[in-house]
Amino acid sequence: MSTVMEFTLHDKPAQLPGVRPDGHELKPMPQVVLDRRATAHFLPDPMPANYLDAILQIGSQAPSGFNFQPWRFIVVQELENRRRLQKAAYNQAKIAEAPVVIIFLGMKQETKDHAHDVFAEGARRGVGNPAHVDTTTQNALNFLNTMPMPVWVNRHVMIAFTTMMLAAESYGFDTAPMEGFDPAAVKREFNVPEDAEVVALLAIGRMKPPDKPYPGRYSLDLVVSAETYGHPWGG
Amino acid sequence: MSTVMEFTLHDKPAQLPGVRPDGHELKPMPQVVLDRRATAHFLPDPMPANYLDAILQIGSQAPSGFNFQPWRFIVVQELENRRRLQKAAYNQAKIAEAPVVIIFLGMKQETKDHAHDVFAEGARRGVGNPAHVDTTTQNALNFLNTMPMPVWVNRHVMIAFTTMMLAAESYGFDTAPMEGFDPAAVKREFNVPEDAEVVALLAIGRMKPPDKPYPGRYSLDLVVSAETYGHPWGG
Repeated sequence: MSTVMEFTLHDKPAQLPGVRPDGHELKPMPQVVLDRRATAHFLPDPMPANYLDAILQIGSQAPSGFNFQPWRFIVVQELENRRRLQKAAYNQAKIAEAPVVIIFLGMKQETKDHAHDVFAEGARRGVGNPAHVDTTTQNALNFLNTMPMPVWVNRHVMIAFTTMMLAAESYGFDTAPMEGFDPAAVKREFNVPEDAEVVALLAIGRMKPPDKPYPGRYSLDLVVSAETYGHPWGG
Repeated sequence: MSTVMEFTLHDKPAQLPGVRPDGHELKPMPQVVLDRRATAHFLPDPMPANYLDAILQIGSQAPSGFNFQPWRFIVVQELENRRRLQKAAYNQAKIAEAPVVIIFLGMKQETKDHAHDVFAEGARRGVGNPAHVDTTTQNALNFLNTMPMPVWVNRHVMIAFTTMMLAAESYGFDTAPMEGFDPAAVKREFNVPEDAEVVALLAIGRMKPPDKPYPGRYSLDLVVSAETYGHPWGG
């Protein structure tokens, strides 16, 4: 970081936009999910700064285990930088087309380093007993040590990722989630610390038609079990 | 499975509820995210079956890499089974209290086994060239082999998980995301195949007050970089 960052915690964001840029109502969740497609091509329309800020604020309010917030976001808007990202991502055209592409990172050791700070600040805000912060921190670190940190940070960064994707769609924008990239190249080109996992990319903007056909989904009969694995649902 | 499941793909769900159970409008995304808290205690109110079905339908429409949908969901509603799950999850009271707890699984080999089917069905629906299905399948499997499958399935199952959590909140329910469990015990108790990763649990119901205090979040200044890592955002 170019300045020493304070790992302090803040209150909820205020004044998020309550309508779409064109004044229409926000799309409700069922419509968001039914309308949403991985956008193949984007128009060059710029992204309104207040909506981009709102999407980032909403994503940053996502929940995480122990409130550790292992996510970091690089917002890439300059064309030259999107072209560099495109080269690190199998040359996907949408990365150069969309006005905004966000690189989602998950911090492994950094998250552990700030565990005590998060619990101490939570206790100041009434979550947990201030006298137990040391014990709680050690228990949380012991839990993290039960699984590989790339698994844990991927699990959590995707909560913020999905929240941002759905928020953008609710505001009437189109999105493209991407996992096709060379993590080492992304890290090299965007000065990403060794500690970070590159989890996913999210392009946001306006779709250039036509939309893709819908490829279908498995039925609930296949993906849902009732009570125990393999017991039919909705029989 | 007690019957041979067909790995075929289906059209979008129809007739998802357009209002909350009490007739109120659905909560829009900003309010969903600002209101949502990890619920500590639940009331015993039952979950309306049509809303549970809608939440599962919405989650099943989540996007995934190659449309592989590696997620499987066990919906646990019977008290005896919730008590068994509670024992496998550090005895968290909310698991026995909430009317519904969903176990989220990610399938590793099974996902690869059905890759060709998914591409073939997509091609029949106009996504991709039917003549390229063999090549596309091999390329996708090669991509999956670049990373550990537990990382990949955690990444994707959390898209469906977050989508369901936000859909439930949009319909006015309260939720509790959980990762504190013994995966081996959950697998043993719920007959989960060896191939599955147990990714997370989600309790859904109605909060028993009081709500928890808000523990705070990092500011965008800390979690967002502009253009390249470490370059201040919103300066």
